Amino acid sequence: MIKIAILGGSGYTGLELLRILGQHPEAEVFAITSRQSKGRCIGEVFPGLDKFSGLKFEDPANFSAFSKAQLIFSALPHHASMEVVPHFIKKGQKVIDLSADFRLKSARVYGLWYGKHTAKDLLKKAVYGIPELYRDKIKDAVLVANPGCYPTGAILGLAPILKAGFIETDSIVIDSKSGVSGAGRTASLDTSFSEVNEGFKAYNVGEHRHTPEIEQELSRIAGKDIEVTFTPHLLPVNRGIFSTMYASLKGKNVSYATVLNVYNKYYTNEFFIRIMPEGTYPNLSHVKGSNFCDIGFKIDKRTGRLIIITAIDNLVKGASGQAVQNMNIMFGFSETAGLLLPPLSV
Amino acid sequence: MIKIAILGGSGYTGLELLRILGQHPEAEVFAITSRQSKGRCIGEVFPGLDKFSGLKFEDPANFSAFSKAQLIFSALPHHASMEVVPHFIKKGQKVIDLSADFRLKSARVYGLWYGKHTAKDLLKKAVYGIPELYRDKIKDAVLVANPGCYPTGAILGLAPILKAGFIETDSIVIDSKSGVSGAGRTASLDTSFSEVNEGFKAYNVGEHRHTPEIEQELSRIAGKDIEVTFTPHLLPVNRGIFSTMYASLKGKNVSYATVLNVYNKYYTNEFFIRIMPEGTYPNLSHVKGSNFCDIGFKIDKRTGRLIIITAIDNLVKGASGQAVQNMNIMFGFSETAGLLLPPLSV
Amino acid sequence: MIKIAILGGSGYTGLELLRILGQHPEAEVFAITSRQSKGRCIGEVFPGLDKFSGLKFEDPANFSAFSKAQLIFSALPHHASMEVVPHFIKKGQKVIDLSADFRLKSARVYGLWYGKHTAKDLLKKAVYGIPELYRDKIKDAVLVANPGCYPTGAILGLAPILKAGFIETDSIVIDSKSGVSGAGRTASLDTSFSEVNEGFKAYNVGEHRHTPEIEQELSRIAGKDIEVTFTPHLLPVNRGIFSTMYASLKGKNVSYATVLNVYNKYYTNEFFIRIMPEGTYPNLSHVKGSNFCDIGFKIDKRTGRLIIITAIDNLVKGASGQAVQNMNIMFGFSETAGLLLPPLSV
Amino acid sequence: MIKIAILGGSGYTGLELLRILGQHPEAEVFAITSRQSKGRCIGEVFPGLDKFSGLKFEDPANFSAFSKAQLIFSALPHHASMEVVPHFIKKGQKVIDLSADFRLKSARVYGLWYGKHTAKDLLKKAVYGIPELYRDKIKDAVLVANPGCYPTGAILGLAPILKAGFIETDSIVIDSKSGVSGAGRTASLDTSFSEVNEGFKAYNVGEHRHTPEIEQELSRIAGKDIEVTFTPHLLPVNRGIFSTMYASLKGKNVSYATVLNVYNKYYTNEFFIRIMPEGTYPNLSHVKGSNFCDIGFKIDKRTGRLIIITAIDNLVKGASGQAVQNMNIMFGFSETAGLLLPPLSV
Repeated sequence: MIKIAILGGSGYTGLELLRILGQHPEAEVFAITSRQSKGRCIGEVFPGLDKFSGLKFEDPANFSAFSKAQLIFSALPHHASMEVVPHFIKKGQKVIDLSADFRLKSARVYGLWYGKHTAKDLLKKAVYGIPELYRDKIKDAVLVANPGCYPTGAILGLAPILKAGFIETDSIVIDSKSGVSGAGRTASLDTSFSEVNEGFKAYNVGEHRHTPEIEQELSRIAGKDIEVTFTPHLLPVNRGIFSTMYASLKGKNVSYATVLNVYNKYYTNEFFIRIMPEGTYPNLSHVKGSNFCDIGFKIDKRTGRLIIITAIDNLVKGASGQAVQNMNIMFGFSETAGLLLPPLSV
Repeated sequence: MIKIAILGGSGYTGLELLRILGQHPEAEVFAITSRQSKGRCIGEVFPGLDKFSGLKFEDPANFSAFSKAQLIFSALPHHASMEVVPHFIKKGQKVIDLSADFRLKSARVYGLWYGKHTAKDLLKKAVYGIPELYRDKIKDAVLVANPGCYPTGAILGLAPILKAGFIETDSIVIDSKSGVSGAGRTASLDTSFSEVNEGFKAYNVGEHRHTPEIEQELSRIAGKDIEVTFTPHLLPVNRGIFSTMYASLKGKNVSYATVLNVYNKYYTNEFFIRIMPEGTYPNLSHVKGSNFCDIGFKIDKRTGRLIIITAIDNLVKGASGQAVQNMNIMFGFSETAGLLLPPLSV
Repeated sequence: MIKIAILGGSGYTGLELLRILGQHPEAEVFAITSRQSKGRCIGEVFPGLDKFSGLKFEDPANFSAFSKAQLIFSALPHHASMEVVPHFIKKGQKVIDLSADFRLKSARVYGLWYGKHTAKDLLKKAVYGIPELYRDKIKDAVLVANPGCYPTGAILGLAPILKAGFIETDSIVIDSKSGVSGAGRTASLDTSFSEVNEGFKAYNVGEHRHTPEIEQELSRIAGKDIEVTFTPHLLPVNRGIFSTMYASLKGKNVSYATVLNVYNKYYTNEFFIRIMPEGTYPNLSHVKGSNFCDIGFKIDKRTGRLIIITAIDNLVKGASGQAVQNMNIMFGFSETAGLLLPPLSV
Repeated sequence: MIKIAILGGSGYTGLELLRILGQHPEAEVFAITSRQSKGRCIGEVFPGLDKFSGLKFEDPANFSAFSKAQLIFSALPHHASMEVVPHFIKKGQKVIDLSADFRLKSARVYGLWYGKHTAKDLLKKAVYGIPELYRDKIKDAVLVANPGCYPTGAILGLAPILKAGFIETDSIVIDSKSGVSGAGRTASLDTSFSEVNEGFKAYNVGEHRHTPEIEQELSRIAGKDIEVTFTPHLLPVNRGIFSTMYASLKGKNVSYATVLNVYNKYYTNEFFIRIMPEGTYPNLSHVKGSNFCDIGFKIDKRTGRLIIITAIDNLVKGASGQAVQNMNIMFGFSETAGLLLPPLSV
């Protein structure tokens, strides 16, 4: 049993960490902080979790309380996270950071999208936490930068075919649709029920902050700089990121079987990746509440494009589930421990 | 590990049995039937369950296959269930029946609401499967009649106060709202998305088949015949039964503390019952995917009425979860085995 | 063409007034205020209304601008409304107030539920604006108190049978379910999409502010003091108020035909009331976007209760549509002018 | 007042025709057929329309009844429509066909996607009914092929920029999301509430029947053969088609102002087209229930792609509203007659 502390736990990623870790055979959350909910019981803030935890949210000012934690999940917003994470790293504690603060390798690029970086020396130490791509590095990491929700779905879908060198690297279009929980647990007219329900819209078109994160990882895989067109949309469902991706195949004669083989090989033995049978495609319903990334694809022979579709639960594989998967790897637990969560398809 | 067979498993109660039993430490589903999905893999019919089970749906005609089952869950429709259940009971196998066929003690009453009963001799043997009320009988049962979804929410909410004798027994009004999955996994214009979404309606007003089931149990508790007014509504959500119940308190001076005490005592040590703190009330969100029944209440002092509110997940505590809870009791497992499912509140 | 000003028009009732009045043959909105949206075009705040109005929201401080208005709709919150309404009345302008400020006849009762009333002298002048009940008074009114959404649905459903003297006046239970737009156009965690969607809850159980309004009107109709039990619920749809009401019939022998006759007579020639055929019941879908109040009922012979069900669109018959209906009466227009809005059933 | 008959009117396009035409100042529906609802009143099949029409659905076998119709809307399924349309044309009656039967100019292409065409001689006569593109031809048409919902949104979004010659014609990707009413008013497990709600999926990926229709029109505009990649998705809302379209700009230096100018010019004086201000994008909420097509766009300078976004109500501009717009043109009415329907944004 390792001892875990969660920082900034009164949002949806905190809720999910509690939901998942509450059933984990090897880990125990012993402290959780929240500025806005300090002093309140978990069951009071999240009535659904009543009977699962007797913890109270603590004032984040009480740093001392966390000195016993073997692992700290930071669910703080960006900027807030990089103010405290170095403190833990210095003390020899391991950290999984769910904010954007340690995902980008370049402080300059971070600056362009998020503002000044104040913990640059940790950027090299931080490992980008997609286990299916960086499992070996995660094993030895002291700081894991847990990926963004959009990047997780996009990178998992594009990595195999990009690695195989089958697509034109300047042809990638990523059309993503996110459930509303991705906007966080906050009061906002933009995410109020009456404004979102029965609607559908694009936002931050061509300028969403997850763009450089996606491009960084795709460029690493391809071994050259890649720029993509990325359009996020707001979907009137609670959970999920659905990405429909388009890329031109290099040769017109690439067959479905060839592409399938590329994906099957790349993801051999990956429990959390499910390649869909030919002619079937992912549905957010089938991943809801689970740590899966479902992948389907189609070759549009008429235009020579490959259409790749991925579906994840933004709060699980796109956030807290993947964070626990990273934890399992860092501490030598079974990678699926606590994560054998069948989706709530209905 | 006990060996389990599921009959009629391609509906939503089958899906939920698979979701729950797939993580159960002491039980294993080794066979499942479905007339309409026979020959197809579980992951094909329920893509969300892919990787959790390698079983195929079998032709229900293959009875012989089930001879090894120690427990059979029948998720067949009413009438269909009572045609096959006697066969298993005769062979000494235990059965938990999720249909309405063995819930009513009186074949005459069954006849009024469902049609002719053809296995009357089993009605006495059958135990009505609400563990919080009949745990001791369930322990020794060979046939458990798993309660209806509406009755579960209504009975759990009314039992304590009725038992305590605090309410006028002719004053009970039950206003219930059910998620659409309660209508089953079938094609129907009435439950098609465009017809249900953004709508809300009452149906079977004052004449729903769950009425006699509710009345039978309330009458048993009160020790006298009780008739209730029961109005079911269709709620545009996937899961959940929410019941708002009204009854006149016998004395105008009954306090909240007194009523709270009645409920706390009645449900002492019941893990799956959560009594809400004063001034807070259940929300379907907080039970979604879990086996809880959340209960809240309010005394309307001006009118002398007690308002009792319960929320359950119709597919879990209202069907498959309660069925597994019954199984745990019948086989001496921990009652929460496989059922420590935190709700997916978001 | 009469000239209309709207105060506090950037909420949902303002949006609906603009939607409806934009198509009205006899009325023209020439000014609208909003503190938070002042200076912005209507099409910018409500993009759906782009091309329907070239108006800008004005600073409410500019009272002078409204001196030309023949009718003022106040869509301000309670308290804010009674601060400005007297000003217009003094000047001889007519006002329809959509807040709660002039609905209750008793300043004392207002005080218990809303706080101190500062324009008591107008309470007698104000006419409660349900046309089906007070058409004659509305004709000559200078100040119409537009009813609350819950009261509209409840009163229209109960008035005929109460007037007829067929029900026990101490037996009334009103179980209401409201769409989320009823909570207004504001940022709040409680009405954020992820918190509301797939959930259902009761709120202000037994203590909602609309209770005294309902009771005032029912008491007037019955000619004696009536107290009701009223439970509002939050329904995950944008629009609609659905009320399921229960009352004990005085005689066990009252037939459906008798009750139907009571309703048909009471609502003879009322265009906006639709009595449903026997065995069918209202559905929010069928009133969405329209000014109808659909009414259905059932006699539960076993318990002697009458179940009355009403459905309205909370923003139309429950607010802005009824306000326009009142305007039509006050100015001698056809009562349905601008209100022949077929619902958007799908 | 022209006299109108509707064939196959018990689906959602029939419902919308009735909703719109019921308020039309110059047209009157005097007959409507439906095989499955024959003999039933409109208000019985569509309770929302009660009080708006006293018509009954007639048996389609009664052709004679329609001889007085000056215009016939056929809302029959494809194949069924081309069996009866020639009959009316021969008699000199005008027809607006909402099926796919007369949209494709090539019987061969029709054959590939829909099966054998049996009224080929009418293909030349039929005018493709997007008024913004073919207004002059529609004026004189006897047979208008009312466009598909997906094609309407795609073509209106791409036509201006394609006509201007600014994009690479082999670079077009159309990622569309449709509300569930697009699947029609039928019982199907695939469109049942519990299967669709909280889900999101792509379907008919790269092989949807609307592909040749889109390509036919884009090719006509561009003056050369164009093939596109088209992916439809099922969106858990009742209404709307949202299309996010991608195309490479020919020159990297095309500015936003230039593109905006192209759209503004192309759609000068088009009431039903709304070009969104820079930095804002369409939302299905803003067109719900209306005949608008909202268009927004963004130049992704980094990749040289133009992102064009359109939103329509699939049942209005994508079907029945556009059909009425075509009627208005054919009969010399004001083009907006009956179509000044402000959207129900909330």
